[in-house]
Amino acid sequence: MSERIGFVGLGIMGQGMAANLLGAGFELTVWNRTITRMQDLVAQGAHAGASPADVAARSDIIITCVSDTPDVQAVLLGEQGVIHGARPGALVIDCSTISPQATRELAAALGEKGIHMLDAPVSGGSEGAAKGTLSIMVGGDGDQFARALPIFQAMGKTITHVGGHGAGQTVKLVNQVLVVGNCIAMCEALMFAQAGGVDLQKTYTAISQGAAGSWMFTNRAPQIMARDWRPGFTIDLQQKDLRLVLEAADELGVPVPVTSLVFQLYRTLQARGEGSEGNHALIKALEHLAGFEIAPKA
Amino acid sequence: MSERIGFVGLGIMGQGMAANLLGAGFELTVWNRTITRMQDLVAQGAHAGASPADVAARSDIIITCVSDTPDVQAVLLGEQGVIHGARPGALVIDCSTISPQATRELAAALGEKGIHMLDAPVSGGSEGAAKGTLSIMVGGDGDQFARALPIFQAMGKTITHVGGHGAGQTVKLVNQVLVVGNCIAMCEALMFAQAGGVDLQKTYTAISQGAAGSWMFTNRAPQIMARDWRPGFTIDLQQKDLRLVLEAADELGVPVPVTSLVFQLYRTLQARGEGSEGNHALIKALEHLAGFEIAPKA
Amino acid sequence: MSERIGFVGLGIMGQGMAANLLGAGFELTVWNRTITRMQDLVAQGAHAGASPADVAARSDIIITCVSDTPDVQAVLLGEQGVIHGARPGALVIDCSTISPQATRELAAALGEKGIHMLDAPVSGGSEGAAKGTLSIMVGGDGDQFARALPIFQAMGKTITHVGGHGAGQTVKLVNQVLVVGNCIAMCEALMFAQAGGVDLQKTYTAISQGAAGSWMFTNRAPQIMARDWRPGFTIDLQQKDLRLVLEAADELGVPVPVTSLVFQLYRTLQARGEGSEGNHALIKALEHLAGFEIAPKA
Amino acid sequence: MSERIGFVGLGIMGQGMAANLLGAGFELTVWNRTITRMQDLVAQGAHAGASPADVAARSDIIITCVSDTPDVQAVLLGEQGVIHGARPGALVIDCSTISPQATRELAAALGEKGIHMLDAPVSGGSEGAAKGTLSIMVGGDGDQFARALPIFQAMGKTITHVGGHGAGQTVKLVNQVLVVGNCIAMCEALMFAQAGGVDLQKTYTAISQGAAGSWMFTNRAPQIMARDWRPGFTIDLQQKDLRLVLEAADELGVPVPVTSLVFQLYRTLQARGEGSEGNHALIKALEHLAGFEIAPKA
Repeated sequence: MSERIGFVGLGIMGQGMAANLLGAGFELTVWNRTITRMQDLVAQGAHAGASPADVAARSDIIITCVSDTPDVQAVLLGEQGVIHGARPGALVIDCSTISPQATRELAAALGEKGIHMLDAPVSGGSEGAAKGTLSIMVGGDGDQFARALPIFQAMGKTITHVGGHGAGQTVKLVNQVLVVGNCIAMCEALMFAQAGGVDLQKTYTAISQGAAGSWMFTNRAPQIMARDWRPGFTIDLQQKDLRLVLEAADELGVPVPVTSLVFQLYRTLQARGEGSEGNHALIKALEHLAGFEIAPKA
Repeated sequence: MSERIGFVGLGIMGQGMAANLLGAGFELTVWNRTITRMQDLVAQGAHAGASPADVAARSDIIITCVSDTPDVQAVLLGEQGVIHGARPGALVIDCSTISPQATRELAAALGEKGIHMLDAPVSGGSEGAAKGTLSIMVGGDGDQFARALPIFQAMGKTITHVGGHGAGQTVKLVNQVLVVGNCIAMCEALMFAQAGGVDLQKTYTAISQGAAGSWMFTNRAPQIMARDWRPGFTIDLQQKDLRLVLEAADELGVPVPVTSLVFQLYRTLQARGEGSEGNHALIKALEHLAGFEIAPKA
Repeated sequence: MSERIGFVGLGIMGQGMAANLLGAGFELTVWNRTITRMQDLVAQGAHAGASPADVAARSDIIITCVSDTPDVQAVLLGEQGVIHGARPGALVIDCSTISPQATRELAAALGEKGIHMLDAPVSGGSEGAAKGTLSIMVGGDGDQFARALPIFQAMGKTITHVGGHGAGQTVKLVNQVLVVGNCIAMCEALMFAQAGGVDLQKTYTAISQGAAGSWMFTNRAPQIMARDWRPGFTIDLQQKDLRLVLEAADELGVPVPVTSLVFQLYRTLQARGEGSEGNHALIKALEHLAGFEIAPKA
Repeated sequence: MSERIGFVGLGIMGQGMAANLLGAGFELTVWNRTITRMQDLVAQGAHAGASPADVAARSDIIITCVSDTPDVQAVLLGEQGVIHGARPGALVIDCSTISPQATRELAAALGEKGIHMLDAPVSGGSEGAAKGTLSIMVGGDGDQFARALPIFQAMGKTITHVGGHGAGQTVKLVNQVLVVGNCIAMCEALMFAQAGGVDLQKTYTAISQGAAGSWMFTNRAPQIMARDWRPGFTIDLQQKDLRLVLEAADELGVPVPVTSLVFQLYRTLQARGEGSEGNHALIKALEHLAGFEIAPKA
């Protein structure tokens, strides 16, 4: 008999992920701070938990998918937290993107009660969550990874066990360093092209398939050329993840000068009220500086 | 009857490109400063020219493929330059990567003699030159582009007419901004991963196919993990192209802070004697700074 | 009759400051976590407190001089904290360098008990603390500033009321932005001079008194030329203050790209074990990168 | 009998310098491309030369004070250049700020004709030129320095022989690295202060005399607070000098990341049409980026 699943945190990501678990036939108990967000899943057959502790009491494996480090600490260790309901042998899977160091501390705290933990941050956006095509980077014990694999396979496509506790979070942050580095490269390149007077669409056609190519350039340069700032991933969320990168880089003593510069640029865009736009709106920082726009509207 | 081709500059790129033109059946006259480099092509059926002017006198279309702006100026406008042999109506195709502004000036100088010009820098490396799979970014007049298309098709695969004189060079520089931006992103990400203690190979597997992906990460991260510094494109050549980017950005008044930082880092590696290594050896600059190495040899 | 003073935190700065208060005739009760550090002052006539709360109970004005934000929070609001001993109308003067935002929160928490607060970070190093020549930047209410002025005058020389709660801390951080910016400028300049082959001492003589001049260049360039890394202010402390700058800049959405770069460079030096050296040892980061040294020892 | 002086280049600096030489009693022959600029000095007793060569033919020591490297090359080695009029044993003193490497080449070219050369760039602005209080950094042979000293003393105050040919220029560039580094530090600090809500004037008072102090902060922060962009030294000239720094740093393989960033920021201000403002208008680049202004006019 398959294990009973609990799911704590039904935001834009959690909704899709939990729905896919239900669709795959898992027995599911859910909880969310804003109760109304539980209704759809309950209508599809999920049980409604009264608190994270209550969810944990009714489940063998508890997934958390919330915003930031303090949120995970609260739902796991807080007053009505998972730790107060989970039995020894239970498994907590944290799909949030949070601090690797805090993850190791949470795993240790749960471990003292005999509760296992995997960190399993995801990438692929709300679309990937809905379609079940997320990439999932998993840190923790190999046996627990094997135990959780059917669950991961119901939610994602590229599932990789990358190391011990916190390693999933570290790999997710490595991912974000690449994302924003490729993003600022795209922005500088497009600004240079615009200033140089070449046709941006032809430039895109000429170079996006070669050594200059990236997922970011392929997918976001066309949006920029259309001045379409709808988010695949918002500046606010990107900024939160970069703060985790910079905190970890600080702890580790590793220099990340480009990431650090991008952090500054995103932060000024947030201060200007543009935090809910897509992370490719980074180009606006260079536009503000340079005093001209890419592909200005006629 | 197809037009007679001249080819000036038989370096590592020019050798392969000229051989493909011969293979496609074009009548070819070649010239190179170091005469011995002409022997292979002559053995394959090319005529040996005595100078750029002589090549031009025997050809309808003259291709130049040399190192930098002053070299192109010399073979086109110098004492024995193409301009002294070419007839009105002839077409010069410059496949070197040089300054967009200098390209416009060369086109104007040739134009006064009734000689046409296309700038057609290539990317794809010596392997692409040999296989005839180069990307070619072409600037200049549309009629001349159409005239030259059969020649481009013998040498490359992705052939794009991107605008007027100099536009091909500008697009090539846009390409290089992306290449080095994606490269420094890769380097920061790998340094962060190494410092964070995760397995680099597993990290690569987990993230290279998603939103963090790039040609650079897919192809060069494995080389870095093997500490294999053999060049697809050398630091010396990359540095030369970045100098063109920075000069053009200076003329245009467009800020390129990341490109500028990478330029500085490459320059220190050159000063340390590592200019002939691949452009992914950029990571050594971060290693020198951080005091630890990626994937140190056992 | 003058007010009774309490002094919490007898580190390298606090020792000198408290001694100057005694010397000026103030009645003084002191406390330090490491009790032995109280002995000298008690021998000079200070009373020994049993805890921060006890110091507060015996004093009208309580000075705190500890390391970082959590330390101030602990000695003010913690279990045996000042708040549990101070009477309404008492005044807390915090001479630590901590977060402006946390300072405002502390002032509010104390204010609810009728306790006044001034933030009064200092600069001038241990020498300034010993000699009573510190610069003191004071934030808070003007009446309380006037009340505290005789105390400040016993400890420092340049005393400025710069605004409301937290303003003293903000000005101290502004000070640190200038210090590290002038420091990296000095380091780049000396590296350039060394690479350019000029005599460093003559260069110093030629330019230190003109438009290029700064306190940093005048005082620390000679130390660098002698490879003397003894600290006026350590990298570890500088790094702590820069972290406060970056956190505040993040909250405020203001870009500080150079400060951010220097933070990264200092952090790598700390990771290499050089955190106890003077902040001018920043030049070692550029030396590691460039692969040569300033003024190498023969 | 004192040596006869020639002066080539009567711009805003040259006017004042030449007038001081006249005032000190030297016999002076002058030349300027725009002839009208010679009138005032001729009215004061100077002879009018017909060309740089003519000036050289009538002089023992020839001073050049023009804009950039190509200008110096033209007036020294060009068709009517100094080299065609100067006798063996003559001394050329170049007070322009130009490339150290080009300076060494010029000295070698003149040396082949037996003509001596000193590079002697100045700092202190038009006010220093008029008052005779310039700082002069001199490179070249010690005997020639001694020969020229009375001339330098008529024009400046701090006169330093810093090394061989080109050393004066290198030291001038070191000076500029410090100037712009201190300038960006000031700008970041003021932006941080403004965002942090503190009174800028009080901040200035509190910190400008301590470890944060610099010539730049003392003299230019008050101008910024008054939004007074009148130049002591224009962005255009600063930018020209930074280009020399970056070219030299490139030749030498030394990283200058902060200078390089400032170069980018100045360049965008030039592109926005603000090149004739003072170099402290650098803060506008940060203002554009951040979206708020320092000390906005009411």
